[in-house]
Amino acid sequence: MLSTTQRTTLGREKDRGSTDRNDLHEVLDTGLICHLGVIVNGHPMVVPTGYGRVGDTLYLHGSTGARSLRAADGAEVCVTVTHLDGVVLARSIFNHSVNYRSAIIYGRAALVTDPEERLIGLRALTEQLAPGQWDYARQPSRKELAATAVLALSLEEASVKIRRGAPKDEEEDYALPVWAGVLPLVTSWGEPEPDPVLPEGIDTPVHILGRE
Amino acid sequence: MLSTTQRTTLGREKDRGSTDRNDLHEVLDTGLICHLGVIVNGHPMVVPTGYGRVGDTLYLHGSTGARSLRAADGAEVCVTVTHLDGVVLARSIFNHSVNYRSAIIYGRAALVTDPEERLIGLRALTEQLAPGQWDYARQPSRKELAATAVLALSLEEASVKIRRGAPKDEEEDYALPVWAGVLPLVTSWGEPEPDPVLPEGIDTPVHILGRE
Repeated sequence: MLSTTQRTTLGREKDRGSTDRNDLHEVLDTGLICHLGVIVNGHPMVVPTGYGRVGDTLYLHGSTGARSLRAADGAEVCVTVTHLDGVVLARSIFNHSVNYRSAIIYGRAALVTDPEERLIGLRALTEQLAPGQWDYARQPSRKELAATAVLALSLEEASVKIRRGAPKDEEEDYALPVWAGVLPLVTSWGEPEPDPVLPEGIDTPVHILGRE
Repeated sequence: MLSTTQRTTLGREKDRGSTDRNDLHEVLDTGLICHLGVIVNGHPMVVPTGYGRVGDTLYLHGSTGARSLRAADGAEVCVTVTHLDGVVLARSIFNHSVNYRSAIIYGRAALVTDPEERLIGLRALTEQLAPGQWDYARQPSRKELAATAVLALSLEEASVKIRRGAPKDEEEDYALPVWAGVLPLVTSWGEPEPDPVLPEGIDTPVHILGRE
């Protein structure tokens, strides 16, 4: 079960809410980037960034010099992951909508200092974006690790919203001669594009070529 | 030219920054949803939502009951639109990255009260999500308009970041026998799915069928 704090309890569209922790994990595990919200000098700042999940901890990372990361350490943050699955075309303008799956996580982010946990977090971050690469590419050097900030955020306080399926129109609109339905949005991987300076003879690894 | 305030001036990765207002418009016009950041009870909140652009004004909307919209009226907000174009697979873990185009807009959002501007904003919002639908579907009723909050945000203070192309590896890593390149992420429209209760004889309109 997910939390039921004030900010994770839906005020509206309650039918779109899920309190199933498996749904939270599914939304997170199938995403590539999140939007991290922090308060910087009293103003909200929303930046796209990578993430990784280990159990019920979310890891974020970035340059130690990044404003957003510095502002997030020890502070209340909000992390949102959104999958847009389609546009819902209703008979009325008012009932137009989108099909989506989104997770919103609230909590206090904390810089990870334990070297082992930092590696666990970085591995999760790398594998989220590019499964198989952690064991394939060159490991981080001591200098590179020192330049990287890793933040941890508990998944304790989170809400999930999911909308699927056909439009919901007003009763009287169903008689209108207006097409209604869903235009699905499909996200897929294209053909891998080798670095132009890649030497001949280095084949594209299966974990990249066969990514689903 | 875009603004050069402190928060829109990149501290890092300056080569990814664009100060071209056309780039801002392009990132916004090709997007479907934004992530709206507001401060609610002292905490950041990031919600996915639709938007529309008219000139240098961004319009957001939502139910008059939505927490995020109520918090945004008259307040400093941050709106971020991100296109993820691919995963950049480098020879080292450290240099893994993503290809993306993102726009971050800062400013004070204000509820639009002028009836004519409200319609202009709603039209832009609808057409952003579903071009052609404003003139095709049933127009909003007076009651529906009353239930809809429209917010305006100036595009005055904005930053754009774009990363394209191959990985940038450390000089000494180019000799490694590691595949490197880009795995493109492709977003496309699927086949329109008619509402199961759609009467026979209502063809899918060209503006939906032929959407690019």
